[in-house]
Amino acid sequence: MSHRLNPLLQPRSIAMIGASNNSGRIGGMPLDLLRHFRYAGDVYPINPKYEEVFGYRCYPDVEALPQAPDLAVLAIAAEDVTSMLERCHARGIRAAIVYAAGFAEAGSAGVELQARLEQFAQRTGMVIAGPNCMGFANINTHAYTAFAAVFKNVPVQTQCGRASIITQSGNVCSAVFALIRKLGIPVSHFINTGNEAVVEFSEYLEYMAQDDATECVIGYVEQLRNGPRFIHAALALAAQKKPLIIYKAGETDKGSEAVRSHTSALAGDLALYKAGFAQLNVIRGNDFAQMADLAYLSGYRHRAGGSRVAIVTMSGALGAILADKMIGAGLQVPTLSDDLQRTLRDGIPDYGMVSNPVDVTGNVVNSPEFVRTIFQALGETDQVDTVIVYAPGYLLDRMAEPLVEMAGRYSKLFVAIDTGAAQCRERLSGAGIPVFDDIGRATQALAPFCQWMARHEQVAHWARLRAGGGSPVPGAAATTAACVAPRLNEHQTKQLLAPYGVTFLPGMSAGNAAEAVAAAAQIGYPVVLKILSADILHKTEVGGVRLHLADEAQLRQACDAMLESVARQAPQARIDGFLVQPMATGGVAELIAGVTHDPVFGPALTVGLGGVLTEIYQDASHRLLPVDEGMVRDMLHELTAWPLLDGFRGRPIADVDACCQTIAALSDAQQALGPHVTDIEINPIQVRAQGHGAWGLDALVLFTPQETQGDKP
Amino acid sequence: MSHRLNPLLQPRSIAMIGASNNSGRIGGMPLDLLRHFRYAGDVYPINPKYEEVFGYRCYPDVEALPQAPDLAVLAIAAEDVTSMLERCHARGIRAAIVYAAGFAEAGSAGVELQARLEQFAQRTGMVIAGPNCMGFANINTHAYTAFAAVFKNVPVQTQCGRASIITQSGNVCSAVFALIRKLGIPVSHFINTGNEAVVEFSEYLEYMAQDDATECVIGYVEQLRNGPRFIHAALALAAQKKPLIIYKAGETDKGSEAVRSHTSALAGDLALYKAGFAQLNVIRGNDFAQMADLAYLSGYRHRAGGSRVAIVTMSGALGAILADKMIGAGLQVPTLSDDLQRTLRDGIPDYGMVSNPVDVTGNVVNSPEFVRTIFQALGETDQVDTVIVYAPGYLLDRMAEPLVEMAGRYSKLFVAIDTGAAQCRERLSGAGIPVFDDIGRATQALAPFCQWMARHEQVAHWARLRAGGGSPVPGAAATTAACVAPRLNEHQTKQLLAPYGVTFLPGMSAGNAAEAVAAAAQIGYPVVLKILSADILHKTEVGGVRLHLADEAQLRQACDAMLESVARQAPQARIDGFLVQPMATGGVAELIAGVTHDPVFGPALTVGLGGVLTEIYQDASHRLLPVDEGMVRDMLHELTAWPLLDGFRGRPIADVDACCQTIAALSDAQQALGPHVTDIEINPIQVRAQGHGAWGLDALVLFTPQETQGDKP
Repeated sequence: MSHRLNPLLQPRSIAMIGASNNSGRIGGMPLDLLRHFRYAGDVYPINPKYEEVFGYRCYPDVEALPQAPDLAVLAIAAEDVTSMLERCHARGIRAAIVYAAGFAEAGSAGVELQARLEQFAQRTGMVIAGPNCMGFANINTHAYTAFAAVFKNVPVQTQCGRASIITQSGNVCSAVFALIRKLGIPVSHFINTGNEAVVEFSEYLEYMAQDDATECVIGYVEQLRNGPRFIHAALALAAQKKPLIIYKAGETDKGSEAVRSHTSALAGDLALYKAGFAQLNVIRGNDFAQMADLAYLSGYRHRAGGSRVAIVTMSGALGAILADKMIGAGLQVPTLSDDLQRTLRDGIPDYGMVSNPVDVTGNVVNSPEFVRTIFQALGETDQVDTVIVYAPGYLLDRMAEPLVEMAGRYSKLFVAIDTGAAQCRERLSGAGIPVFDDIGRATQALAPFCQWMARHEQVAHWARLRAGGGSPVPGAAATTAACVAPRLNEHQTKQLLAPYGVTFLPGMSAGNAAEAVAAAAQIGYPVVLKILSADILHKTEVGGVRLHLADEAQLRQACDAMLESVARQAPQARIDGFLVQPMATGGVAELIAGVTHDPVFGPALTVGLGGVLTEIYQDASHRLLPVDEGMVRDMLHELTAWPLLDGFRGRPIADVDACCQTIAALSDAQQALGPHVTDIEINPIQVRAQGHGAWGLDALVLFTPQETQGDKP
Repeated sequence: MSHRLNPLLQPRSIAMIGASNNSGRIGGMPLDLLRHFRYAGDVYPINPKYEEVFGYRCYPDVEALPQAPDLAVLAIAAEDVTSMLERCHARGIRAAIVYAAGFAEAGSAGVELQARLEQFAQRTGMVIAGPNCMGFANINTHAYTAFAAVFKNVPVQTQCGRASIITQSGNVCSAVFALIRKLGIPVSHFINTGNEAVVEFSEYLEYMAQDDATECVIGYVEQLRNGPRFIHAALALAAQKKPLIIYKAGETDKGSEAVRSHTSALAGDLALYKAGFAQLNVIRGNDFAQMADLAYLSGYRHRAGGSRVAIVTMSGALGAILADKMIGAGLQVPTLSDDLQRTLRDGIPDYGMVSNPVDVTGNVVNSPEFVRTIFQALGETDQVDTVIVYAPGYLLDRMAEPLVEMAGRYSKLFVAIDTGAAQCRERLSGAGIPVFDDIGRATQALAPFCQWMARHEQVAHWARLRAGGGSPVPGAAATTAACVAPRLNEHQTKQLLAPYGVTFLPGMSAGNAAEAVAAAAQIGYPVVLKILSADILHKTEVGGVRLHLADEAQLRQACDAMLESVARQAPQARIDGFLVQPMATGGVAELIAGVTHDPVFGPALTVGLGGVLTEIYQDASHRLLPVDEGMVRDMLHELTAWPLLDGFRGRPIADVDACCQTIAALSDAQQALGPHVTDIEINPIQVRAQGHGAWGLDALVLFTPQETQGDKP
């Protein structure tokens, strides 16, 4: 495979600049490892002080090398890095790893140093990893360029690697690597990306999507520096069905504070990270052991599991515990059909359970033929995707034979949990059945893995939608010109959005009170009066909204009072007149929907229930754009408040179809209006009873500051 | 120690009825274990088929025994149990363990059998464990009466036990025991309680509160059968600072379904379980490994830890991860004071962190004197209660010396996490510093343990409050008579509750429309009109509430319409007239508060925000009674919606004092009115701005059916 990162990740020859003969120092440790693990390529220590280091001939400087190596590793101080890279470049070296700290993570002088490094890379095209990194290890080719003590402390790896580890922290890389190796899972790449001045996290991910020796990636990020590239890489891995497991640091303010101080990274908006990860089928790591277990499960990635699980035990208590834990972790434990229960009941005594969890009772172990029938029935049914078998020690051994047989016959995911010391473990593992020895760890890894399996179609759907760039919208082109306007008042905003399919409560603009009265006569009382001004974002706060106006007298009075109040509280605002709307009543619920521009992931949609309590309960759903109506429906279903739309306590069922259509239209609008639109918000959306529609009552569009700068009042 | 359970838990002699010479059978396995572990007491196998079993002389029947043993273990079928117990009783045996299944867990015939067993025990005073249980093990005296294969598969125990395990499931008992022994923690008692026909879970707990060989109890329950006794036992353990860790099965519908089928137990209301456990300082187990880790931590129960933690690492990333995890698990990671930060900064380089998490950076390891200063500063400060040190392998070794010194000097809890292979582990453990080797496991156990440490004073406060039986309420005695009334209408209910300190919006009762008009004239319009009837619980649903009545005409019309509507929709109801109230406006928030009678824990208080969304978001706080105003304040703070009372987004701050007073008065009312009051509810409570009070707008009191049965219309 040809790739720009090859010299970094599969170097055929390595120079170590600042070589040391002390394996405890960063210039010595990698040389010691290369020697210890018998790296087959050429190794060139560079240090004028030595003739030979760790058995390798040592050179005084890069110019003296007999050939240009694939990779130079710089174990020298930050201030010497760029000039040394110049010399490497002159010598024909195309890739380098920079260990040194003291760059962007270390204040303004370091930021300057890093900018120089970036400029150098841009000018020369040199591929540079780091700075402020621990280096790499290709365990398969024994190309160790990392100064990490962990490699000699784990079991020696004899098989070809399967998992790759990419982290923004060297300590995390070592800790996760140790746990994965402890489980006996062979590793391909150990990558600590550091400050990512030149080669950024997602570029490594793209490499792994193509790498035959990588079937899953374990990552740790504090900050994603290139969101679009990350989306591309995650979709590429998803297309290959290679699990991507990422621990995102900075889940709390304290955590992100620590991250910020450490690597000068800014932890992005967590809610959107979570939503984006789910949408891209990235598994969120939450514990190093869980990540190692997910690397183990990745060996079973081609099985056809999913989130509906059957639980088979020989203990009612353990069935209850497993069901609680699996459901708590987000899986479903569906009650089996009557037919299927009858099949199971034929061999399970009355005091056992057949509904799911299935408690076969201890007796069944004496009847292997019946155990076979159970696994066959659960293998065959389309009511569950995954079958989890819990039995300690010899009880699991008794079930091993039929389990292996059925895992061979059905592509469904079968999983075993043995808290004893069953002898069949290796046999099961080898036959496509992962085995866990702890219920908690099994749950923590299985739940996200089963959800990952269940999401293949969903992520493929979004990839297609994204590739298609959304559906063409009639009339859109004609209105695109409007978006170069400096700011829009509410009426203009609605006119801008309506062609994309956003439904609004009809209203009329009026230049003055007389026109407002005429409009109201046409609309019919009671009406709502709003001030019309592109300069006022929050109308209510300046007395710019009046509800329930019952007749002409009230309307005229409201016009006068409103102009007076607005003039007093927003004296700078240019007033375009009034907006007159019918008084909208009879809504089942009010929603808020908005497109924002996330600094990492780009345009994203947020949907929530309107009002103050939603903010308090943080009940909102997010998606990266584009979305279609089906995705909006999923978002509404995700809301804790969903029952309010679905007939909660005898309320009418809401017109969810109309609601989805109006919200999905925001996605089309954003796609058509382009990146200089930063925010689109409809708030509130009044959702009426089924068949009676949903409409926006107010709307807002914001443009990038550059567009409006010149036009500020 | 003298205790009724001694013959079960510390038997000096054991008879095995239904003895077998096969160690794979339930009548043989315990005998094999007694022999294997060299139990010093007398062992009497009973089976007419054998002369000798496992080297013990075998007897044909209980009557042939040379003495009455402390304990008889019955390995015989369910239907033979009671008659055999009669014979044991006749022989002078005072305690028995019944293995047999086929009792209450197995349908109506079994329920009958169990009832007979219970009657027998009541009549004779015999102490009977089970039925449907696996038996016990006293690891210290080697009194093995359990048929469990686990005992020979774990490391041999040489120290005196410290942890006791009590579970309602034999499989769970074995699984937890294995994990605890794997950690090297010595166990005292292994107890599987089974159906608890005679000796119930909480009686074992009471025993453990007194047992010198038990410093923590690990439990598993599907159902608590005696709530008051559980409360007593939990408080006794709390008073001894012995952690009580309980896994409660049935957290989800699926889980409780499995539990119900298995042991015929009914999983109680989970929210109240959680609240009750917290109030009694019971640690909720959520994973077997976590429970084993908590048993380990219990060895450090006398240290003065708490929930405000300092995190010390040599890696910013790991500091961020630990902070995220600890905060996510419910602990606080407070920012250290400027003074303290300055002290730390003296030795920590710029790129390290001093605010908490404290990132000492790798360099500091070279300066042991400074590490000492850090631990001294964190040991001395009252800003944190617990100090968590993370460093892998040799890095932790470098810090061990000052860590041990400071743990000796300060009683604060110091904890170490080593994901490498530090040599200092045993040294630290022995010096009062628990050591974990996994961040996830450390978090899962440490968080609840630190919270347990932080709650000592709180649980002691409640124990005193409970012992005092609440404060005497003036006027209460006089009204107690009212509670024997069949049912009360709203006006009577309010009159019943007011003397205890519940504030209500003043209102006047009226026998007819004319009286209502007179009342309104006194109160002042606008008013609210409600129907007055003890037979109507939900007034709104029958048209029995009218708001915003502006004048006499509207009021008269409302009276007529209301009588008509109520007569039509609740024809059976006896109507006492009307209630006229002022129209209450200007509330900051509406709360709901109610006393209910939980089938397990007895009277309990629930407080939540009023309205439909609170139900959807399940935002409520619960306490067992009695409560005082301070506890009610804690409950309000626990609500996610608390900010609404606390000036959220510029709203006025609510009169929380008045609110707490009115709600706490419900506790006094319940205490005074006694157990035949099952429900007291005030809904809504209108909370006004600070200084303007809080008052109930409506109230309800329900009595036990027995009291009202005879008076039903």
